[in-house]
Amino acid sequence: MNLITFLSDFGLNDGYVSSVKGVILSINPRAQIIDTSHSIQAFRIEQGAYVLTSYYNNFPPKTVHLAVVDPGVGSQRRMLIIKTSQYYFVGPDNGLFTYIMQREAYQAYQINVQRLKQQRIVSQISLTFQARDIFSPVAALLSKGTQLTVLAEPVSQPPMMLTDRTNFDQKVILARVILIDHFGNIITTCSQFQLSGMGGGKIRSIKIKDSVLSGVHQTYSDVPSGSLLALWNSSGFLEIAVNQGSAEDMLGGLNGTESIAIYLE
Amino acid sequence: MNLITFLSDFGLNDGYVSSVKGVILSINPRAQIIDTSHSIQAFRIEQGAYVLTSYYNNFPPKTVHLAVVDPGVGSQRRMLIIKTSQYYFVGPDNGLFTYIMQREAYQAYQINVQRLKQQRIVSQISLTFQARDIFSPVAALLSKGTQLTVLAEPVSQPPMMLTDRTNFDQKVILARVILIDHFGNIITTCSQFQLSGMGGGKIRSIKIKDSVLSGVHQTYSDVPSGSLLALWNSSGFLEIAVNQGSAEDMLGGLNGTESIAIYLE
Amino acid sequence: MNLITFLSDFGLNDGYVSSVKGVILSINPRAQIIDTSHSIQAFRIEQGAYVLTSYYNNFPPKTVHLAVVDPGVGSQRRMLIIKTSQYYFVGPDNGLFTYIMQREAYQAYQINVQRLKQQRIVSQISLTFQARDIFSPVAALLSKGTQLTVLAEPVSQPPMMLTDRTNFDQKVILARVILIDHFGNIITTCSQFQLSGMGGGKIRSIKIKDSVLSGVHQTYSDVPSGSLLALWNSSGFLEIAVNQGSAEDMLGGLNGTESIAIYLE
Repeated sequence: MNLITFLSDFGLNDGYVSSVKGVILSINPRAQIIDTSHSIQAFRIEQGAYVLTSYYNNFPPKTVHLAVVDPGVGSQRRMLIIKTSQYYFVGPDNGLFTYIMQREAYQAYQINVQRLKQQRIVSQISLTFQARDIFSPVAALLSKGTQLTVLAEPVSQPPMMLTDRTNFDQKVILARVILIDHFGNIITTCSQFQLSGMGGGKIRSIKIKDSVLSGVHQTYSDVPSGSLLALWNSSGFLEIAVNQGSAEDMLGGLNGTESIAIYLE
Repeated sequence: MNLITFLSDFGLNDGYVSSVKGVILSINPRAQIIDTSHSIQAFRIEQGAYVLTSYYNNFPPKTVHLAVVDPGVGSQRRMLIIKTSQYYFVGPDNGLFTYIMQREAYQAYQINVQRLKQQRIVSQISLTFQARDIFSPVAALLSKGTQLTVLAEPVSQPPMMLTDRTNFDQKVILARVILIDHFGNIITTCSQFQLSGMGGGKIRSIKIKDSVLSGVHQTYSDVPSGSLLALWNSSGFLEIAVNQGSAEDMLGGLNGTESIAIYLE
Repeated sequence: MNLITFLSDFGLNDGYVSSVKGVILSINPRAQIIDTSHSIQAFRIEQGAYVLTSYYNNFPPKTVHLAVVDPGVGSQRRMLIIKTSQYYFVGPDNGLFTYIMQREAYQAYQINVQRLKQQRIVSQISLTFQARDIFSPVAALLSKGTQLTVLAEPVSQPPMMLTDRTNFDQKVILARVILIDHFGNIITTCSQFQLSGMGGGKIRSIKIKDSVLSGVHQTYSDVPSGSLLALWNSSGFLEIAVNQGSAEDMLGGLNGTESIAIYLE
């Protein structure tokens, strides 16, 4: 109880993140808010979905995971609460919870803004800042133990899922870059989860730009310092890295749209 | 009680912010410190003033707002506590609290460093890091409920206000850029507060660089994806934005000194 | 008790930092985690060591300082707990605690991973993310008051120290850049601690690139606005700065490997 994580694409050079926190603490003064990342690239839903997946299950049961990457703010897109056996997820209905819904049994609810207004849970709503005016009060109330049914109702239609743009063939997966981390490690869309959904194929080699990598290693120091390698990262996604170096720098000029070919045995 | 927000231009790649927090927690172990932004551009007082204004009133009553953008650190500038009906503000006397003082009834106090030394509230004072050595103990003590009069006395002269460099004429306001946010939205010096001070004129059009925008919209999705628009942002400042895009990228090459002409009806 | 600071070179655009926090809060729900910096340049152990030194002693007694800049993750390098009279430090054995060990009396322990596994304190261990799987549980348990001897044993060999690459001569110190802060201030490897170890020599002048600076000032405003100066910063390291400006911008094109010559009286 009282624990809320908060992910967004708001950045940290203005007051958006703080306004959200202020609202949460005004409703639940005992809330403990953990910033996860506010550096998601603007409107990159898939990137937010990945980062959320990388940490959510390290938190204690009952944690409320607030996540807002919301290009459709102010439009008619629904606002969701996803309930799993351990957690609540609060955010827009645009695919942000795709990887969570693939990994966990869940029930999906849509926030009933009309009812929140009637109950004076929300009042003035800025069309450009629903994170502050709707998502924050909802997350704060869930963290206090408010009944889900007071805030939301079961969805009438299933939540949006990110279309998996990875292309399959008997023996090749075409993956893409989700995110390049602080070390220059390149995280791809290919996951162990995805591979096991395909019957558990084993990776023979990986081609990215002009480099071909053999097999998947366990850790960076499996290869000499300065060498390129592929490995399953700690969240179960395929990562291209350089031991004690930067894969981004070594491969140079990635624009995020490159195809990465993954050849299976 | 116990809640402290902290804004600065210290950045996050060194230990300055942490030293401040350590000092606060040493004095008030129950303090809950909320980082608001430490990415204010170095010495940009106006930017700090804007960001502070964007979040302060989302926090619960009794919150202490610590704000340090302080080009004059170590010089003779005064150190202030601004008391409003709900909050304390602690920081240097250089205009950082201008927008707060315009919006709220307040009393201004100057920190009495001599008395703090006598009472051993502060001891060693680095001339380059008064945020750690003076502002932090003061904020920590206020958050614990220490009487204001122990720490400060009413100012003898009014606090500095940012000179409002916006130029008025019957029908045109010349505004400037305060801040460009993570989405590339351009926040201007023109505010609803300012307009209502002028008698509540309505905006007809806005000229920024070679673009002319008609009227002020309510939300990003009021215009087609990729289009430029003006809107009142959630803090009541005029913002130039692109629906699902970046106004900064679309307008290109802003150096922050451009005049933005706002034509009234 | 319950207070943990956390420094790393993980950056904030992914979920690494959050995973660590989730693990800590799962083990010690009362933990208060203070992010210090996650913007240490990848693998720059010396930079991490400096930043840690700049804030550690501002925190209350019993604080656990978790610090992970760990190019050797997954290799055979030891994992340490350094105990001083006031604090615990948890992190890899690669020199990260050099400046702490120079300043404080300490006892060094190595984490016994085998025993942690037997006691089911840690279970699955990713070779690429030992911060999450080993350091976090250890820090969390120390913050709860778990006996050090349950987690670690005295080191058999002394911890690694950063080789002090500063060169001495009768009258000249050759220092280097550790870090350039948000203001463009240049922090050097030369410290008051180092000087007093040399018998307390006084600095006559400093040469950096083509600029020669006379003496060491007390604060930025000791020189006119826009002028270059040297001063002892608030952590006792020699800093090159510009009053109300950026030394980085003024000196231009520093690549971090420049020698800074410091001439003693």
